[in-house]
Amino acid sequence: MDNRPIGVFDSGLGGLTCVREIMKTMPGEDVIYFGDTGRVPYGTRSRETLLKYVRQDIRFLETFDIKMIIIACGTASSAALPQINGEFGSEIIGVVEPAAKAAVKATKNKRIGVLGTNGTVKSGKYPEYIKSLCPDAEVFQCACPMFVPLVENGYAQNPVTRIFAQEYLEEIKKQKVDTLILGCTHYPLLKKTIGEIMGDEVTLIDSGAAAADYAFELLKENNRLSEKKNGDYSYFVSDSAEVFAELGGMFLSRPIDGRVAKTDIEKY
Amino acid sequence: MDNRPIGVFDSGLGGLTCVREIMKTMPGEDVIYFGDTGRVPYGTRSRETLLKYVRQDIRFLETFDIKMIIIACGTASSAALPQINGEFGSEIIGVVEPAAKAAVKATKNKRIGVLGTNGTVKSGKYPEYIKSLCPDAEVFQCACPMFVPLVENGYAQNPVTRIFAQEYLEEIKKQKVDTLILGCTHYPLLKKTIGEIMGDEVTLIDSGAAAADYAFELLKENNRLSEKKNGDYSYFVSDSAEVFAELGGMFLSRPIDGRVAKTDIEKY
Repeated sequence: MDNRPIGVFDSGLGGLTCVREIMKTMPGEDVIYFGDTGRVPYGTRSRETLLKYVRQDIRFLETFDIKMIIIACGTASSAALPQINGEFGSEIIGVVEPAAKAAVKATKNKRIGVLGTNGTVKSGKYPEYIKSLCPDAEVFQCACPMFVPLVENGYAQNPVTRIFAQEYLEEIKKQKVDTLILGCTHYPLLKKTIGEIMGDEVTLIDSGAAAADYAFELLKENNRLSEKKNGDYSYFVSDSAEVFAELGGMFLSRPIDGRVAKTDIEKY
Repeated sequence: MDNRPIGVFDSGLGGLTCVREIMKTMPGEDVIYFGDTGRVPYGTRSRETLLKYVRQDIRFLETFDIKMIIIACGTASSAALPQINGEFGSEIIGVVEPAAKAAVKATKNKRIGVLGTNGTVKSGKYPEYIKSLCPDAEVFQCACPMFVPLVENGYAQNPVTRIFAQEYLEEIKKQKVDTLILGCTHYPLLKKTIGEIMGDEVTLIDSGAAAADYAFELLKENNRLSEKKNGDYSYFVSDSAEVFAELGGMFLSRPIDGRVAKTDIEKY
């Protein structure tokens, strides 16, 4: 048994879709969340800047006595984690490995699509990891740079979002994938639109949820799940705590309850 | 005569529309530009975070021997400049005062529209300043949060941008304004679309260009223009210099020529 909290971080609010899954599958776990809302988005940053930000985020979470860190951000998991893993004392998992595993498990025709930010697509980590698990899989990626601003500005349910989704999905749809990874933790908020365009026969993999499920298996296997009945949640951000508390519920599918505080991430 | 450079900064690339005007009206001036590309956008940050970033930007520019600073960012000019002006040794001008003056000069029916980021609109600085110049003016503001991501992701000329523009401009158009301030330095790239929706009879005020024209008048009045024939340009950014050099030309209407270097803005 290990009652220490799980640390989770993301560029901003998207990682809360991973916390939502933790609440569901591991309701006894304490979570310390960091959202880098003062420097969001990560998807368009250069790799060098991204590495700097991710290292600061991890150093901040390591100031707490945590048992594991989940990088609940597609860009940071794909474009930074492979390089920095091993630099830190903590066990760190990202979303790429769990989402790739879930996709390989789900696919029948071995044709897998990946939606992500520019940073995620450029990193090539999804195709690389999927092919290491299933060498004859074919992987089709598409960068969807407008999805994050659309979600963050409240256009997730707006018909205009469908125009962008149709543009982004056109090629992947032609390729007849039967499994599609939502490689950015903001994208579950667009699941309905993406699902309608792709059709019922295509399995959508929520990468944040896949990471939470993977963490659950790891902790269970090693008898490191918390004994608590109900977990406690603390949230830290690098911009306004009030705005986070207000908007976070949209990603969490329930109101933010727990302490929300601002931290100066540039100090870490 | 004062041959020292003018310092210009913005959250990212938008401020180059102001530099473009400096090149036109004051071709002999040297310019040192800083684009905070590692922390763009500013429009959605809280006021506290914005103040911190703007102070760092100014401290960085003050490491050079400059004669003036132009804040070529609508959000920073409206939501930060009024509070921090006076904290620094430099003469600092923003875009609000010059754009408001130009609008008051241009309007005939005293009905003025303002487009800006959430931060700019929330600050209320445009209505405040316009009414101080022309107490019976009526000012209609609209926050356009999707314009910056649309421009930055290459959708400026895409028909989908017209859908957002129509939504944002609907109320302002109804109010029969005859003058419309483009209160964010990204918006000149949408001038064609905005102009088509508003109609020929509405004067569009480019706030970055207005700031450059205002700086020109100030310098000329005080005999502080440069004696040089051709100015030199140096650009600094907080993220990739290569990406800035590649995309900057879109805002400058000519290729970036001059040194582009990365700086660690968090140190200032």
